[in-house]
Amino acid sequence: MTSPDSGRQSLTDLALAGDRRALARLITHIENDTDLGQTALDKLYPHTGKAHIIGITGPPGGGKSTLVNELIRAWRSAGLNVAVVAVDPSSPLTGGATLGDRIRMQEWFADEGVFIRSMASRRFGGGLAQSTIAVAHAFDAAGFDIVVIETVGTGQDEVAIANLAMTTLLVQVPGSGDGVQAIKAGSLEIGDILVVTKGDRPEATELTRDLRSIRSLGIMAGADDSGWSQPVVRTSALTGEGIESLVTTIDEHLQWLRDNGEETNRRREIIAAEISVRVQGKLMQRFSVEDENLQHLVDQVLRREITANRAADTLLSEH
Amino acid sequence: MTSPDSGRQSLTDLALAGDRRALARLITHIENDTDLGQTALDKLYPHTGKAHIIGITGPPGGGKSTLVNELIRAWRSAGLNVAVVAVDPSSPLTGGATLGDRIRMQEWFADEGVFIRSMASRRFGGGLAQSTIAVAHAFDAAGFDIVVIETVGTGQDEVAIANLAMTTLLVQVPGSGDGVQAIKAGSLEIGDILVVTKGDRPEATELTRDLRSIRSLGIMAGADDSGWSQPVVRTSALTGEGIESLVTTIDEHLQWLRDNGEETNRRREIIAAEISVRVQGKLMQRFSVEDENLQHLVDQVLRREITANRAADTLLSEH
Repeated sequence: MTSPDSGRQSLTDLALAGDRRALARLITHIENDTDLGQTALDKLYPHTGKAHIIGITGPPGGGKSTLVNELIRAWRSAGLNVAVVAVDPSSPLTGGATLGDRIRMQEWFADEGVFIRSMASRRFGGGLAQSTIAVAHAFDAAGFDIVVIETVGTGQDEVAIANLAMTTLLVQVPGSGDGVQAIKAGSLEIGDILVVTKGDRPEATELTRDLRSIRSLGIMAGADDSGWSQPVVRTSALTGEGIESLVTTIDEHLQWLRDNGEETNRRREIIAAEISVRVQGKLMQRFSVEDENLQHLVDQVLRREITANRAADTLLSEH
Repeated sequence: MTSPDSGRQSLTDLALAGDRRALARLITHIENDTDLGQTALDKLYPHTGKAHIIGITGPPGGGKSTLVNELIRAWRSAGLNVAVVAVDPSSPLTGGATLGDRIRMQEWFADEGVFIRSMASRRFGGGLAQSTIAVAHAFDAAGFDIVVIETVGTGQDEVAIANLAMTTLLVQVPGSGDGVQAIKAGSLEIGDILVVTKGDRPEATELTRDLRSIRSLGIMAGADDSGWSQPVVRTSALTGEGIESLVTTIDEHLQWLRDNGEETNRRREIIAAEISVRVQGKLMQRFSVEDENLQHLVDQVLRREITANRAADTLLSEH
């Protein structure tokens, strides 16, 4: 079979050899799940597994971009290559805020060791998770030491995406009431590491203390199960406080996974999630072409002859 | 066929006759999608279509619960029965904040004309949307004039859920930078009506003005397409400002849908979305029982012999 990517100097080969422009083009194919993108993933996949994939999530305006920027600086100083997949699913209609992203990209534009990719998010949650992890694989295969998956929010989609990482950072903002809300909502559990941003604010002391108290009380589920006690790291982009400590803590988490036989478990979970997302995407594709049948069923539901549930059964029984 | 709900005085009959305890029990079945719940939906569905289903979404801490409370008060004064389905998908792990909800429920506890149901959200986005609209149908059939679907956030799941309504309110909070963020993200488009909460704050004036300017500039997609010009309503729970005006605007939106032949279009869209969510749920159920096959494929992906994408193909080809 001849594919547009089967030549001697294919995009995939070039990307694997470190050609950043080829990588950028390849990622567009992977993101859009084109045939070339799927074939490229097949070829790239055996080269993956070396990068530390790190998920970062937290509320909008929580200083995540700034934090990621500071982390990039620290990792670059240590000689590590860093790729970022930035996901902003907050806008299903126009594709998310890209302004901040462009500013960030400019800062690292001349540095071949940094690659920031923001995801166009004109698709539903499942598709976005699928593209995000696929692009992370491409970065991994292309030799980046660190791949950051950055998502906005703590909704189910965002959490699902952040959980495709080996280490997940949950950002908490002082003075926003986030601490209390997060405690109530139980969303603290999703972070392997809790990061208090804007640590120069007076309220940061209280939030950091509260989070540590909660952790020590063992209220947070998950912590006890795995034996990993979620560290709380206070950072400030203004003073630079905490960034080095955070970098160390991130390393320690990966090391802990390895020392405790948890690494393979987590990789299996991530793979199962990825397969599930792919299955879901493929199944929905099958049914979106069913337009005529669907419209006929919509009419029946509109006339209240059947429920949407029974309409779904009918659609499925035809396959 | 004999179902546990087929007796003369079935839960469904009792719920349709106005028995609130029967309705509460039935809703638990519908939410969990039990056989009884599905059968009940079949029986309830012909009785739906009379309620005005209203979606409310916006950022966490945006005063949505307070707003809903004020709206309930106004609707009750007008002699209308009100049901609320409160969805908080922010916590996939512990099921969302229920504290505020309990406080709210207490306030209306003695009033048979108000029913507030918070959704346990220990499931993924699709399942939550499915339960939400199914419970809304039950309230509709049980004779509630107004059914509010309240979700937290402006992520894709939340928007999808809020869009299952005839009229969608998008809450904007003064002084949060929400206005600018929302404009950038394009998320304003999801609201048929924009509601500025905390209208007693000084920043509310600026936000209201900004939102109106944006609207009049025609930047917001959707507005021009449909011919409905999104009203911006400023409300304050403190002063009571704007609540009556909001109630009127909500009525006007439904009337506008009817006068412009848009009502059926929107109902068709909602039904199509509901069928799609049901199809997705049923398909995922089929595959979650595939444990052995899935685990075998996970191993292959773990050894990097195949990608998750090819594993998904294999799973699907076996059906």
